Amino acid sequence: MPTTALAILARPSLEAPPHAGPAPFALVDPLSPQLSALDLAATRGDGVFETISVGGGRPQALEPHLRRFARSASALDLPAPDPEVWRAAILAVIAAIDPAREASVKTVLSRGVEGDGRPTGWAFASVSPDHAHARTHGVRAVTLDRGYRHDVERTSPWLLAGAKTLSYAVHRAALREAARRGADDAVFVSSDGYVLEGPTSSVVYRRGERLLTPGTGLGILEGTTQGSLFAFAAERGMETGYELITPAELAASDAVWLVSSVRHAAPVRELDGSALRTDPVLTAAMNDYLARRLD
Amino acid sequence: MPTTALAILARPSLEAPPHAGPAPFALVDPLSPQLSALDLAATRGDGVFETISVGGGRPQALEPHLRRFARSASALDLPAPDPEVWRAAILAVIAAIDPAREASVKTVLSRGVEGDGRPTGWAFASVSPDHAHARTHGVRAVTLDRGYRHDVERTSPWLLAGAKTLSYAVHRAALREAARRGADDAVFVSSDGYVLEGPTSSVVYRRGERLLTPGTGLGILEGTTQGSLFAFAAERGMETGYELITPAELAASDAVWLVSSVRHAAPVRELDGSALRTDPVLTAAMNDYLARRLD
Repeated sequence: MPTTALAILARPSLEAPPHAGPAPFALVDPLSPQLSALDLAATRGDGVFETISVGGGRPQALEPHLRRFARSASALDLPAPDPEVWRAAILAVIAAIDPAREASVKTVLSRGVEGDGRPTGWAFASVSPDHAHARTHGVRAVTLDRGYRHDVERTSPWLLAGAKTLSYAVHRAALREAARRGADDAVFVSSDGYVLEGPTSSVVYRRGERLLTPGTGLGILEGTTQGSLFAFAAERGMETGYELITPAELAASDAVWLVSSVRHAAPVRELDGSALRTDPVLTAAMNDYLARRLD
Repeated sequence: MPTTALAILARPSLEAPPHAGPAPFALVDPLSPQLSALDLAATRGDGVFETISVGGGRPQALEPHLRRFARSASALDLPAPDPEVWRAAILAVIAAIDPAREASVKTVLSRGVEGDGRPTGWAFASVSPDHAHARTHGVRAVTLDRGYRHDVERTSPWLLAGAKTLSYAVHRAALREAARRGADDAVFVSSDGYVLEGPTSSVVYRRGERLLTPGTGLGILEGTTQGSLFAFAAERGMETGYELITPAELAASDAVWLVSSVRHAAPVRELDGSALRTDPVLTAAMNDYLARRLD
């Protein structure tokens, strides 16, 4: 079975006229050139994306991802993605790859070729690398300044904080900086000293019987996996909540995870070189829940 | 004559093995699909670029642009662009378009297809829109928070401030915000209150017989056009210098310009709704110099 599949959408957004013909998308060779060198995805990082995990051959948390995709598009003044076409394309690329393995689908909506006024959209499915080690043994993380105050989402919306844009060069540079420091991942901290999120994950932590995350409106993504884990916690009778915290407060909590769609819950076993407490039993239950979830 | 031309580089960086055959680049149809949907330019804004103006059929300030291209690549831990191959590709795309008109060449170096370990590079030449109105009559600008302190380039290099990356979604959002406020352009201000740069330009201002710019090391681009204008000023016996200033100090100067490779020197006639002093004689001399410069 193929390990990757690519669909190019003819009508990625509600307003876009069809590129060609009546088919809403086309499955194409994932290795063939598909994009113009003038596409604003490639020249300006001017677009938005989602990464949706696939478990048991089905997309997980699909509707929360599609809602966040639409919110990100709105933050960039992009036309709203057509959820019906995206759902169909996502299911089609999943159906085209090996169903026996963990996978993910990346959806991308860009502003399209400059001057063309027509967005570009594609969905790419690929079998996932094995994240078992990070889920079980955890990751070492370092805190890194994100540069922005915790309130820029409110004061300066043009900074697009909280939107999942294609402009991720800083996120990747942060991961390289973490590696330079001998760590596996990073935790962004606002310029005024509050814990935000990882470059590709949400921060979740436990304090006693409460499962917490730094909150909304902080210029960070509303985590779809964090949302799933809050549902999991509620099922177990744990309280959940949002709290603005400092790195020192995070390090003093009972357990910390970096959670994301594909890697799921990775316990943070070390932060800035200091060992953190971990909770292997709760971690295993979280990852079992995330592997089995459908919505 | 064609108004656009595109070259795909087979060997964009010094370390990269040739993609195919001995030709260092190939001229291709600019409208044909050339990029993989997996190229990190398109999925992560993970690459760098330059925009080089063309005057009299020749690239202007080519060597400063190539040096900045290399510095940006280094900031992103990308392999160094091969200057010889880029020079040849740039000249080839210029030779392929209408020589009678102002034009520009955009060079892009991305990290390439994820997992491939091989960068992607292309050079795109296009005839420029007519910027005569902005050069003569000026632009209205608004100040917008850039979110970062003026010293993040030194404290937090992973924020890539000062590198010309493909992750320009914020720059474009700032221009849309300026338009919403009835302005033509924006001037970014650091979170601690200092004038930085425009989203696609440098800020230059005159105070008496001195031509000034906010400086280096502020997480802003070293402006190639600003560099040309400092050479112009020196030829006229004006002093030049770098000064950290506030928006109020900028507004009180004798003239302000947003300067960039393609639009050249656009006088700022209004900042945040207040009229600024302008200097039409010096503006005309600047733009005449920029139109004629070679290096």
